Amino acid sequence: MDKKIPLPVNLIEKLKEKKHRTEKGLFLVEGATSVLELLDSNLHIEHLVVSEAFWNDYRGKLEKPGCPISPIHEGEVKKMSSLEHNISAIAIVKQPELAEATYSKGITIALDGIRDPGNLGTLVRIADWYGIDTIIASDDTTDIYNPKAIAGSMGSFLRTRVIYTNLADYLSNSPVPVFGTYLNGENIHTTDLPKSGILVIGNESNGVSKHISQFIKRKLTIPRFGGAESLNAAIATAVVLDNWRRSLT
Amino acid sequence: MDKKIPLPVNLIEKLKEKKHRTEKGLFLVEGATSVLELLDSNLHIEHLVVSEAFWNDYRGKLEKPGCPISPIHEGEVKKMSSLEHNISAIAIVKQPELAEATYSKGITIALDGIRDPGNLGTLVRIADWYGIDTIIASDDTTDIYNPKAIAGSMGSFLRTRVIYTNLADYLSNSPVPVFGTYLNGENIHTTDLPKSGILVIGNESNGVSKHISQFIKRKLTIPRFGGAESLNAAIATAVVLDNWRRSLT
Repeated sequence: MDKKIPLPVNLIEKLKEKKHRTEKGLFLVEGATSVLELLDSNLHIEHLVVSEAFWNDYRGKLEKPGCPISPIHEGEVKKMSSLEHNISAIAIVKQPELAEATYSKGITIALDGIRDPGNLGTLVRIADWYGIDTIIASDDTTDIYNPKAIAGSMGSFLRTRVIYTNLADYLSNSPVPVFGTYLNGENIHTTDLPKSGILVIGNESNGVSKHISQFIKRKLTIPRFGGAESLNAAIATAVVLDNWRRSLT
Repeated sequence: MDKKIPLPVNLIEKLKEKKHRTEKGLFLVEGATSVLELLDSNLHIEHLVVSEAFWNDYRGKLEKPGCPISPIHEGEVKKMSSLEHNISAIAIVKQPELAEATYSKGITIALDGIRDPGNLGTLVRIADWYGIDTIIASDDTTDIYNPKAIAGSMGSFLRTRVIYTNLADYLSNSPVPVFGTYLNGENIHTTDLPKSGILVIGNESNGVSKHISQFIKRKLTIPRFGGAESLNAAIATAVVLDNWRRSLT
């Protein structure tokens, strides 16, 4: 802890925008729970800004990464954070190297133009719950390093990677079957699902885009028992994954 | 359509607050899709404020309820609406009479202190998808007539009612088993679920409250395959209901 290190106020402000995140190769992890999980990961932390209380509670853990640490008043943490209630910690973290979009065994999720960072975070959390370590995202899917996506993932971004790619190319070359959810497909309660496959999740408002839907060879349906017209993307993903995992055990 | 009817600008503004909604026994339904569904329901509409385009597209349907209609510029609708993108319609609707919290056959959902109106709306939509027509809510659960809850339900508030009551009293007298989701309960993939039962859903941050959890006699668990610590309330509800419905068919 070196008192002479200047507080990275401007850098934190800049990292709330994608342009600066990409330019600097950095992103923010905010809030006590996420930062504590981050400290147990092997991501490279560049700077930690923490409240004095958080510093006192976790001093041993916080000194581990060997990066600059700035303990400040909790009101100051709150002011700098993009989260409404964060009075504990903000970490400036190096983005891991971009990974290639490869094909893997097991279930893969492919996102087609998810727009809302909170939804993206929720999808990462669901994928992590169901043991899926890779999400393939179309280039127009919102940035996983958006602070709202990181917060929404509740630490799951540390276990489930999001890899951006040209989704049409990725799906067109897939060696495993490509699935999507529709209102008129195979009933997920009764259909057989393979050990490996890709589940495509469409945009929140428009569903799967036209140029992507041509690659979906198997349409799945979540049985409906009432009057709602649809389920949202994250809910549908969780229900399909639950059935998929269940059918394999 | 009577041009002399004054535009209910102030009333709409007031109905964005619970105090005024309760006092006047009214609430707002906003957006094209929800208002069109509303017109097919038997709820009593007091006033319709619509854009000229919406008025032209649905004139026949809009005249049906026989209430005052104010066609105005779409920019004006947007300005009055609590939704960001609503340029079509706002309806002022009479709240249906309060129903008693009774016990019914089949699956009932009980909400314990859900705080976020968007989450409440999503839960209503999920309940409707799974054919559940009644949700029992603790008195401290957020108001279903909050415009964000109504919007989030995507029209499902027309089919699934939310009845507020003293939840502890309701659960303590239940003739059917009371379930909750925990990390260490019966695996929903393998456990037998009864035809009738109540599923308690806890608050977003704190889960089921202490004075309510004593009434939960059967703990259910959604099997986890990865590292995420939990699933959010709406996701967990959908997954449990999917398994429950599936086990009964």
